[in-house]
Amino acid sequence: MSKKYNRLDKDNAVVLLVDHQAGLISLVRDFTPDEFKNNVLALADIAAFFKLPTILTTSFENGPNGPMVPELKAKFPDAPYIARPGQINAWDNSDFVAAVKATGRKQIIIAGVVTDVCVAFPTLAALEEGFDVFVVTDASGTFNPLVRESALSRMVEAGAQLMNWFAVGCELQRDWRNDIEGFGAILGGHLPAYANLMQSYSQNSK
Amino acid sequence: MSKKYNRLDKDNAVVLLVDHQAGLISLVRDFTPDEFKNNVLALADIAAFFKLPTILTTSFENGPNGPMVPELKAKFPDAPYIARPGQINAWDNSDFVAAVKATGRKQIIIAGVVTDVCVAFPTLAALEEGFDVFVVTDASGTFNPLVRESALSRMVEAGAQLMNWFAVGCELQRDWRNDIEGFGAILGGHLPAYANLMQSYSQNSK
Amino acid sequence: MSKKYNRLDKDNAVVLLVDHQAGLISLVRDFTPDEFKNNVLALADIAAFFKLPTILTTSFENGPNGPMVPELKAKFPDAPYIARPGQINAWDNSDFVAAVKATGRKQIIIAGVVTDVCVAFPTLAALEEGFDVFVVTDASGTFNPLVRESALSRMVEAGAQLMNWFAVGCELQRDWRNDIEGFGAILGGHLPAYANLMQSYSQNSK
Amino acid sequence: MSKKYNRLDKDNAVVLLVDHQAGLISLVRDFTPDEFKNNVLALADIAAFFKLPTILTTSFENGPNGPMVPELKAKFPDAPYIARPGQINAWDNSDFVAAVKATGRKQIIIAGVVTDVCVAFPTLAALEEGFDVFVVTDASGTFNPLVRESALSRMVEAGAQLMNWFAVGCELQRDWRNDIEGFGAILGGHLPAYANLMQSYSQNSK
Amino acid sequence: MSKKYNRLDKDNAVVLLVDHQAGLISLVRDFTPDEFKNNVLALADIAAFFKLPTILTTSFENGPNGPMVPELKAKFPDAPYIARPGQINAWDNSDFVAAVKATGRKQIIIAGVVTDVCVAFPTLAALEEGFDVFVVTDASGTFNPLVRESALSRMVEAGAQLMNWFAVGCELQRDWRNDIEGFGAILGGHLPAYANLMQSYSQNSK
Amino acid sequence: MSKKYNRLDKDNAVVLLVDHQAGLISLVRDFTPDEFKNNVLALADIAAFFKLPTILTTSFENGPNGPMVPELKAKFPDAPYIARPGQINAWDNSDFVAAVKATGRKQIIIAGVVTDVCVAFPTLAALEEGFDVFVVTDASGTFNPLVRESALSRMVEAGAQLMNWFAVGCELQRDWRNDIEGFGAILGGHLPAYANLMQSYSQNSK
Amino acid sequence: MSKKYNRLDKDNAVVLLVDHQAGLISLVRDFTPDEFKNNVLALADIAAFFKLPTILTTSFENGPNGPMVPELKAKFPDAPYIARPGQINAWDNSDFVAAVKATGRKQIIIAGVVTDVCVAFPTLAALEEGFDVFVVTDASGTFNPLVRESALSRMVEAGAQLMNWFAVGCELQRDWRNDIEGFGAILGGHLPAYANLMQSYSQNSK
Amino acid sequence: MSKKYNRLDKDNAVVLLVDHQAGLISLVRDFTPDEFKNNVLALADIAAFFKLPTILTTSFENGPNGPMVPELKAKFPDAPYIARPGQINAWDNSDFVAAVKATGRKQIIIAGVVTDVCVAFPTLAALEEGFDVFVVTDASGTFNPLVRESALSRMVEAGAQLMNWFAVGCELQRDWRNDIEGFGAILGGHLPAYANLMQSYSQNSK
Repeated sequence: MSKKYNRLDKDNAVVLLVDHQAGLISLVRDFTPDEFKNNVLALADIAAFFKLPTILTTSFENGPNGPMVPELKAKFPDAPYIARPGQINAWDNSDFVAAVKATGRKQIIIAGVVTDVCVAFPTLAALEEGFDVFVVTDASGTFNPLVRESALSRMVEAGAQLMNWFAVGCELQRDWRNDIEGFGAILGGHLPAYANLMQSYSQNSK
Repeated sequence: MSKKYNRLDKDNAVVLLVDHQAGLISLVRDFTPDEFKNNVLALADIAAFFKLPTILTTSFENGPNGPMVPELKAKFPDAPYIARPGQINAWDNSDFVAAVKATGRKQIIIAGVVTDVCVAFPTLAALEEGFDVFVVTDASGTFNPLVRESALSRMVEAGAQLMNWFAVGCELQRDWRNDIEGFGAILGGHLPAYANLMQSYSQNSK
Repeated sequence: MSKKYNRLDKDNAVVLLVDHQAGLISLVRDFTPDEFKNNVLALADIAAFFKLPTILTTSFENGPNGPMVPELKAKFPDAPYIARPGQINAWDNSDFVAAVKATGRKQIIIAGVVTDVCVAFPTLAALEEGFDVFVVTDASGTFNPLVRESALSRMVEAGAQLMNWFAVGCELQRDWRNDIEGFGAILGGHLPAYANLMQSYSQNSK
Repeated sequence: MSKKYNRLDKDNAVVLLVDHQAGLISLVRDFTPDEFKNNVLALADIAAFFKLPTILTTSFENGPNGPMVPELKAKFPDAPYIARPGQINAWDNSDFVAAVKATGRKQIIIAGVVTDVCVAFPTLAALEEGFDVFVVTDASGTFNPLVRESALSRMVEAGAQLMNWFAVGCELQRDWRNDIEGFGAILGGHLPAYANLMQSYSQNSK
Repeated sequence: MSKKYNRLDKDNAVVLLVDHQAGLISLVRDFTPDEFKNNVLALADIAAFFKLPTILTTSFENGPNGPMVPELKAKFPDAPYIARPGQINAWDNSDFVAAVKATGRKQIIIAGVVTDVCVAFPTLAALEEGFDVFVVTDASGTFNPLVRESALSRMVEAGAQLMNWFAVGCELQRDWRNDIEGFGAILGGHLPAYANLMQSYSQNSK
Repeated sequence: MSKKYNRLDKDNAVVLLVDHQAGLISLVRDFTPDEFKNNVLALADIAAFFKLPTILTTSFENGPNGPMVPELKAKFPDAPYIARPGQINAWDNSDFVAAVKATGRKQIIIAGVVTDVCVAFPTLAALEEGFDVFVVTDASGTFNPLVRESALSRMVEAGAQLMNWFAVGCELQRDWRNDIEGFGAILGGHLPAYANLMQSYSQNSK
Repeated sequence: MSKKYNRLDKDNAVVLLVDHQAGLISLVRDFTPDEFKNNVLALADIAAFFKLPTILTTSFENGPNGPMVPELKAKFPDAPYIARPGQINAWDNSDFVAAVKATGRKQIIIAGVVTDVCVAFPTLAALEEGFDVFVVTDASGTFNPLVRESALSRMVEAGAQLMNWFAVGCELQRDWRNDIEGFGAILGGHLPAYANLMQSYSQNSK
Repeated sequence: MSKKYNRLDKDNAVVLLVDHQAGLISLVRDFTPDEFKNNVLALADIAAFFKLPTILTTSFENGPNGPMVPELKAKFPDAPYIARPGQINAWDNSDFVAAVKATGRKQIIIAGVVTDVCVAFPTLAALEEGFDVFVVTDASGTFNPLVRESALSRMVEAGAQLMNWFAVGCELQRDWRNDIEGFGAILGGHLPAYANLMQSYSQNSK
């Protein structure tokens, strides 16, 4: 009764970035602001590095929820960008679902704000439709750890897999020899402790 | 083998508020008093806003357990109110079960004090009878986090879903355009950080 | 696909207290000493109050592991007491298993020190033999929270249910009217916050 | 070498509320939003209850810092309200200092956002001028506990006294018999655990 | 510029137990209920063991604050017991101060609920009058750690010394040979980890 | 529907130590350095004590990741040692898989750095191939607790069992009488609190 | 007995950055790597923005301690850079002290790794020579919070003031009108939560 | 009003190791057992490395308190070893004080178990006699952080300086060039994270 290893594949994955908006991010309290910003941008760098189709969406960006993080917009200038007129669950927006399905991919990598709503609702809907869903827990934020744990429990019970941005990158990369410099640059840029190792190594190697 | 998204539906949900009594609440130590009160009243506001049938019950309210939180009583003046004569598990009280079944609804949203008894016991009993049960983790309190985690584990293994009050509200609301002002007022009243966003937005918009 | 509520029954439950020894307890770091002692004695009081058959066992009590907590010995003077000659897993000791089976009961309530060994091993063995196992998480201690969580995960995946002593007591009691004074005395003796409620109530009632 | 008890006196104290603005409050991470809002409004209620002269000030309220918390504005409609044109330290604003000195009072009760700047700077300046300064630590917020502790250390070393809103209220009240109902209403409104006591007491007294 | 060691002396110390009442104790959140009860009773046992004059006082014990912990009343049947009619600061009650002064002692050992008011206010007043004050931090409780730290800072800056009940006992005891059994019994009764050591030692010594 | 107790068997288990390298270990933040080193070396001592086949592997040990912990290399001089040329998932390296399969064993005990990649990926791959996998959670480290919990969730859902090094040792040992001195020496060497017990016992026994 | 407000003055302050080296930073465990890097670079930006003389120093940068953080070197290309040949306390190096004194400034702003040695030792030495020392606690890192607190206590008792980088910047800036855009850019770059406010404000203002 | 830098001097310092006994150490809960053992042995290695006179003392070592840590005894075979017959405060034992004074040294480096008694009492007594006292906070343990903080506050107010073992070693070493290999070996042996740096450096240097 062994279980198939459902492994991320750069030719079958799509990235969904849901509601990373300036106002909503101010509600995030299960990470420090420094950590959360770093995690979100690291996931974006990974999506871009592996040329994964990426879909952005926002909720009421002209109201209190505020505009999408500008670095994300700049990173994916040509990505589908769905400003939802009111649907809380992005999967209730037909343009969003169409954009996902248009990629033809079956592995959804999702992150968003807040975890219990903007991530959980589309995750549950996508699982129902047979997608594999990988929730990037450290690029998704919410009010406090209890809320996070409740939401993650709900998603795991429905079949989602929990990952962090670093594991997502490594599972896509497979082998360091597939562009070691490019992948190393992402790690160095988002893991200061890894950058320290590279700096010490580099100096010692001289 | 995808899994059906069991989604809260305002025409199929009933809210059970179990033993939120002044004495018992003083036993709650997995939340600060400020947070817990806010969470319970937020759930009550959501129940009222969506006009969900709501059932209140207490255990020995004339003894040390103390009276039900007065705001709850005032909020639901016409709701069934079952003062149990001794049953610890509300589901052992036939009036309570009858009140639930009289609603004809199949989705139970439950919160109470203490999580491991007053929430867990009726949850397990209702699951056995085929109800869908959604436990509102942040409107349910108990002695400490270990007790909470043990109780939540027991309920999840039996099929309960864990949610927080904010996610409950959002899943019922579906679309912001369904009365944005009414729903926004609940968020502003119970999420000070969201109220801050609204105040800044409102000022800037002038 | 509803799930049966496997509910503690005072006519079908047996309590196993495993290796609560003076030396081993000094290894427990996931509780303060005050809390842990209180939790263990509370569970013992519950076992005695409901007249549940109770089985005590120790590991090398004449060596560094030290003697069993004297209050437990005193509480159950006639209980089977198996001083194991070397088996780490109590279930590997045939006298112990025989004592359990002699009770004819199918619901095992277990607590011990340390959680990951003295509780987990017999729990997994008993589940294999078809017993229902209820692990009392707050009367079982170990080195740190990560170890506890790992051990609890292993037991839950095998089918164990997690409970705390208070929930065990309440599920056995069913109705306050079944000897309210006796049960109240246990709560007052082991829950200082509940004792406070009773004292205030009592004074106000005069 | 005993030390004089520098005790709050309702005829000699003035309250300074500094930069409790919607945007700045979103930076506060050493409290949950619920707790912080409650603490600030509790202090405001105390200031009003004891009719202490109260001075409000903001920094750039038309920019990202956002408007002052509306409840504060509403609570003190006639209080001096200094919208500083640029000075970070409120004490660098001559109108603000003039307003303080116009009260003729020597005991300053101060709270603000963020603790390390908006509270610390005027506190250090006022101490230099010979005022007694009482910093209300739980109505002042900042980025994280280390920043708070560093700022409090700096202020204490300069002679400030640290208090919380509840202690401020009690030291001003002196004796419960000075309007027990009014003072009790503040406690009940801002200390849910105290409200629970009052509700149980009230029911039992019937 | 060495500093005199102000050392507790059983012939010069008096113990003040302030407002350890059932209702007020339910407000204490910087300790678990188990720990706090144990600490308070340990201090009481020490006071009795060394026959220190002990003074009890309460605030509004017939209202929501509730009755004094019954174990304290029972422990000191002949001690002065001042039920204050309204003064928040016990030192504002002339009977209380008279009782303290009647002992002729200059070292005050104080504990109470809540730390920031019921302990801090009389501490500051007693320091002003030239008493040495030793605050028993682990037998005094309040709303949360920040409030405690603020209150302790205020008292330390005014000259109070911070101690825990164990250190108080040891400083009074001076030498184990002064009744080793009596003092050991207190430690064994209130330090379960020390009781474990004694049990293992005792068994091994047989 | 009882569940088989999948129990570690010293004749059927193989130990995999993955990427415990000096550089990578500096990234580990879910343990203190003291604890993590101790846990890893304890697991190594257990592997050697029970003569379990053990396989070591590293990733880029001549780059920033740094050399394998020297104590591990010294402990297993004859073990297969696979320095992977680039594969991130050790299971993608055919030499590594061959070494595992050459042992003929079906129970994999695995630990490594970082948990979410170097442990999770081979665990998921081995489960897919029908191995039983026991993840040693306290000898595996990563960036922070959230990352750990996400990775452990993913592995548990796929069928892995979570254990700690102490439980691994005890489950392999089965009975203290199987070389009590040898096994005791491992515990004494890696559990200072157990060493304390042994020292006290030893002295008292003289 | 009021106390002079010793206030940072951009014409009298010098910044010392001590041993922020790649290897040593890997020892820092009282901050996450993200936070610490951000804090150090924020302080550097402030030093550069206010054109404060800045002095860099390292200890054994060609050994395990590793090279200085490259961003610091790049930020201050013309600053004195003292690679100490062996002195642990930078103040024992005459070139370093000479560089400090050559600035003619009396206010030292210091940060470094590790707090208890590289910051504490020169701080204590500089205080002895009559400098005012402002320790930037959030740009200084060490092994754990207890070590930090012990070191900060030692420095405070000797007269140092504790500040965080944000407060340093604000005390130097004095008034927002002194280059609001430049100062705002530093805050936006190092306080993601402040950047969020600016983005929302900017969008709303359109 | 600058303050003299009271700096540890290897020709003027004496080390006091008080009551590091197997039983008493089992009471220590403000460190994990791994960390505490490592810290104590690190301090011992430093004392030996700098050939500081070192004095050992125990309290009732033949009773429940247990024998001194054997590594300490082995490390200092010729050191004065005072097994106190009953005095709780080591400074009340005339042999102990005589041993201290016989060294002719004025700087006392002290560590012990428990901090609030075995460290605090002799520290306060030695300060009274004009010694400089440096308390090694991370080689001294007690029941919980609050007790530690209270005890440290008492000692600091009396004039003690707080240090950690690493800072003690560095302040005595002064310059790495004074036997870099010997001092480096101590750091590598007790700071696994530093050992990692040395291993990576060493490999890269090849």
